[in-house]
Amino acid sequence: MNGLSCGTSNIVGVRFAVYPMADNFVEIIKGALKEVDTSKVWVQTDDITTCVRGRSEHVFDVAKAVFIQAAKTGTHVVFNGTFSVGCPGDSEGDTYMSEDDIRLNEEASRQESVEAATHFALYPMDNPDYMQVIADQVKTAEKHGTFTKGVHYASRLDGTANEIFASLEEMFVDASKTKERAHVTMTATISANSPSTKDN
Amino acid sequence: MNGLSCGTSNIVGVRFAVYPMADNFVEIIKGALKEVDTSKVWVQTDDITTCVRGRSEHVFDVAKAVFIQAAKTGTHVVFNGTFSVGCPGDSEGDTYMSEDDIRLNEEASRQESVEAATHFALYPMDNPDYMQVIADQVKTAEKHGTFTKGVHYASRLDGTANEIFASLEEMFVDASKTKERAHVTMTATISANSPSTKDN
Ligand SMILES: [Ca+2]
Repeated sequence: MNGLSCGTSNIVGVRFAVYPMADNFVEIIKGALKEVDTSKVWVQTDDITTCVRGRSEHVFDVAKAVFIQAAKTGTHVVFNGTFSVGCPGDSEGDTYMSEDDIRLNEEASRQESVEAATHFALYPMDNPDYMQVIADQVKTAEKHGTFTKGVHYASRLDGTANEIFASLEEMFVDASKTKERAHVTMTATISANSPSTKDN
Repeated sequence: MNGLSCGTSNIVGVRFAVYPMADNFVEIIKGALKEVDTSKVWVQTDDITTCVRGRSEHVFDVAKAVFIQAAKTGTHVVFNGTFSVGCPGDSEGDTYMSEDDIRLNEEASRQESVEAATHFALYPMDNPDYMQVIADQVKTAEKHGTFTKGVHYASRLDGTANEIFASLEEMFVDASKTKERAHVTMTATISANSPSTKDN
């Protein structure tokens, strides 16, 4: 693929970054990464973002853990990422698909109660019913109690980081099952410790 | 639409945030906004992101200007946003579609030479040929000299912020013309003044 590399159909990936709004942002990011076990995922970091790939549960486990470990410092921290599954393309990192399903960071993440606010958007590709797929998945967040409202181009979730990531993961995984070998992406902007008044 | 509000078919929007990695991030953001003329676009800011909607040229003009005005401080600043056109939905902000095409911030933006690095991804919705649409648009960035390489789930651009936004705008607008009333979104993570070594 010219200009766009993806993955095999069942590998899940996220390309993301965590932004601590502080002079010591490098220290906060490095500190967070030191707390996170990434041994069950393929990881590559460059000067713009980090890409994590593997089984769905480990991709979400690692993304959540990095955000929570950075946000627990109390600094205003934002996670921004795009999750992807089913993108036609190469197979680098396939070896991680044979890992078991035990999440390595869940216990540590559960110990932190970080309040967060999120805008997310689901993009089911090549699917004429995509608006219905999105509407159906929003019902999952309503059921979880994390859904706050629709905004232009996105939906808003509020809750703890653990609750928000649980909603995002369930919506993403369920959306990927609406079609054979579905290619689905999901953007998420997750903010903690913002000095702005919550708009919910 | 339950949980997802969009726009009329020809209105363009971007939902974005600019992240200055500094203790005085509020001051940097407010300072940048003070330099940007937003009188030709609909703007709404909450505690997570800012949404700008209107004619394509003004949406890109304002997004670029906010990023450049924040990045010219020399602080490590990242712009993260999703551009959207053709999303079925409401019509709030339609009044801005009657503005002329003179960009209010282009002159000020042109005066700054901010080096930047970008990951972007195009999502042409409900289109079986979407991978070809993406590949075709990447050729535009190659022609501009901004394209660096494909990475998992995205493509990398390098250049000045002015060059990068020109490529993003052309690719986005051209992709939106590949189909009648096309719904296309484009994510972009644009980084300036990063302390990390460029991976290009
Ligand atoms: Ca994004």
